[in-house]
Amino acid sequence: MPVRALWWSHGALALYDQRWLPGETRILRLRRVRDVAEAIRNMSVRGAPSIGAAAAYGMAVASREGGWTPARAARLLAATRPTARDLFVGIEAVRQAWADGNDPLRSAHVYTAALVKECRDIGERGAPLLRRAKTVLTHCNAGALATVEWGTALAPIRVAREKGAELFVWVDETRPLLQGARLTAWELAKDHIPYAVIADNAAGHFLHSGEVDAVIVGADRIARNGDVANKIGTYEKAVLAKENRVPFYVAAPWSTFDHEAADGSQIPIEERSADEVLQFQGRSTAPARSAARNPAFDVTPARYVTAFITPEGVLKPAQVRSAIGRNRRGSAERPTPRS
Amino acid sequence: MPVRALWWSHGALALYDQRWLPGETRILRLRRVRDVAEAIRNMSVRGAPSIGAAAAYGMAVASREGGWTPARAARLLAATRPTARDLFVGIEAVRQAWADGNDPLRSAHVYTAALVKECRDIGERGAPLLRRAKTVLTHCNAGALATVEWGTALAPIRVAREKGAELFVWVDETRPLLQGARLTAWELAKDHIPYAVIADNAAGHFLHSGEVDAVIVGADRIARNGDVANKIGTYEKAVLAKENRVPFYVAAPWSTFDHEAADGSQIPIEERSADEVLQFQGRSTAPARSAARNPAFDVTPARYVTAFITPEGVLKPAQVRSAIGRNRRGSAERPTPRS
Repeated sequence: MPVRALWWSHGALALYDQRWLPGETRILRLRRVRDVAEAIRNMSVRGAPSIGAAAAYGMAVASREGGWTPARAARLLAATRPTARDLFVGIEAVRQAWADGNDPLRSAHVYTAALVKECRDIGERGAPLLRRAKTVLTHCNAGALATVEWGTALAPIRVAREKGAELFVWVDETRPLLQGARLTAWELAKDHIPYAVIADNAAGHFLHSGEVDAVIVGADRIARNGDVANKIGTYEKAVLAKENRVPFYVAAPWSTFDHEAADGSQIPIEERSADEVLQFQGRSTAPARSAARNPAFDVTPARYVTAFITPEGVLKPAQVRSAIGRNRRGSAERPTPRS
Repeated sequence: MPVRALWWSHGALALYDQRWLPGETRILRLRRVRDVAEAIRNMSVRGAPSIGAAAAYGMAVASREGGWTPARAARLLAATRPTARDLFVGIEAVRQAWADGNDPLRSAHVYTAALVKECRDIGERGAPLLRRAKTVLTHCNAGALATVEWGTALAPIRVAREKGAELFVWVDETRPLLQGARLTAWELAKDHIPYAVIADNAAGHFLHSGEVDAVIVGADRIARNGDVANKIGTYEKAVLAKENRVPFYVAAPWSTFDHEAADGSQIPIEERSADEVLQFQGRSTAPARSAARNPAFDVTPARYVTAFITPEGVLKPAQVRSAIGRNRRGSAERPTPRS
C-alpha cells in the first residue's frame, strides 16, 4: 500500500499526525472544522498540497458540523498558515461548490483526486530527467505525506524506481522540524529506496565533491516569474547546486502556482515560534533566554531553478507565466491574507 | 572573568566538558594521557586551537604519569582526530622540549600562553574590519571554548564590543553537535553580546535579505593556497556570502596554517559516527536502521575567502603562502597521520 497522508473515513477527516512520525503512528480523526484548522496550524498535517487537501476536507467537515457558513469556515481555515498557496486554492474549490448548493464533501473528494493524479503525472513527467542520475538530493519532505499521495519531489524518484532506475537519495534532515530525517526517510524506507540522512550543513560538501547528480524539491508557492517559496534552506541548496553545476528541479501541482504573485517579494513568509529552533523534542539546545529567529520558508529566485516539473511537463522558469494562465485553479476572490 | 576552555590545576589538566554545556557545567581533571586522548576524541574538548593546547598539556601529563616516552605519547595523542592542524603542532612543541630534556609542563604553558596572545592579537587585527558592520554571522563555535581564550572568530567581535561597537551576532546552531546553539550562544550570553540562534538552513535567507553585514568563522586547517577546512557547513556559508557580496573572513592562529598542505585536497576530513546525525541527546531523529553520512568538516576553496584574520594582520588568500613561511610553528617531523 502506498503511503497516503489523509483520507475520509466514517464521517471524519483522518490523517497521520506527522509531528510524531516516525517514532509513533498516531491517526487523528477530525469532525470539527476548528480541529482541522488546528491540525494545519500545529503542523500535524503539513506540505503545501496536503494542506490544501486538508483544508478542502475541512470545508466539508464544517458543512456537516452545522453552524458554519461557507465564508466563515473559509476564513477560519485561511488564517492558519500564510505561505502555502495550495491552502487557499483547496478552501476556495469547496467554498464555491458549497455556496452554489453542491455537495462540499464530493467537491473535496474531486479536489483531492485531481491532486493525486497531478502528483502521479509529475512523477511520469519528471522521471526522464533522472535517467542519467545515480544520486538525488532532496530537502524537507515533498513526498506522499506532503501531497496526499506520490509526492512532488519524490514522485519522479518513485516513478524512476518503478521503471528500474537505481537511485540513491541524500536526505537533508531539514532543521528545525526535521521533516527530512523523520518523514522523507520514513517514506523512502517503506519503499525500499536507499538513502542517507545528512545534516543540512553537509549538502554543500556533497554537491562540491561531485556526489550529487540532481537536486529535487517541492514548493509552497511559485510566483509568476518563477520565484519559489519553499522550506527554509531551499535557497541555500539552490545556490550551491548552481555553483556546482548540478541541476535544481522544483516539482509542484498547479495549486502551488500563484497567478497573483508577480515575484517572490509578494509571497508572505511565515515566521514560527523560536522554540522550534531552541528545543528538540522538548529538550533545550541553547542557553535559557536565548533569542532565535525561525523563518519557516525562504524564496529562491527563478534564476537558480533549472526547471519546474509540473503535471503537464517540464518547464523553464520563463514558461511559468503562461503555464499558470492555462492552469488556474481557484478564483481571484479566495481569501488570501497577506501577512 | 573571561571564559577559559582549559587550565592546569593541582597536577592535572582541567577542562570544561563541552559536550554538556550549556545545560550542565562539568569540569574534567585529567591525570592520565589516555584520558586526555579520549577527551579530544569524544569532543569533551574541541576547536582546533583548544585541541592543540589540550594535546600539549596531554604530553605534560604523560611525562608526569611515567611509563611514556615522548614519541609514544605523541603517537597516542596524534591518533585522536585527523583534521585540526593545531593538534599536531601542540603535540610537537612539547615532544621536542621533552626529548631535549626540558620541562614538558613549562613547554605546554608557553605554547598555550602564546596561543592566547595570538587570539587576542586576532581580535585587535580583526576588529577594524567590523567598523561598518551591525550584524555578523558565525558558524560553529570559534570562541574561547575553541581556542582557550578570546576565540578566533569571536575575538574581533569581542574587541569591537570593548571599543564600543554595537554588534548583533547571528549564531548558526551548527548541526549535528550544535556547537553554535550550545557554546557560541553560551559565550555571547556571558559577554552580554546580543545574538539570535538560527537553524543552519536560515543563514542563506538572512544573507539574501541583506540582514548580515559580515561572516566570520574559525578554521581547523588552512592550506598554503588558502583553502580552509572548517566545521561542516562552512563551505555553504562561504558560497552564500560570496553570492550575496557579503565579506567572508576566516580567523586563525599560526598553529592552524599547514605549510605541508598545498591545497584543500591534502587535508584529511574526519567522518564521525552516523549516530551524531541520527540522534539528538539520545533521541532518534530518523527511522530505525537509517543510514547517515557525517563528515565533520568541509573544505572552502580560497576563492570564497575575502580575507584571513591572523595575529600579524589581515591577509588576502594569495598572501597566505608567504605568511606561513614566516610563521611556521612545529617541525616537519611531527606525526601527521594522513587518513
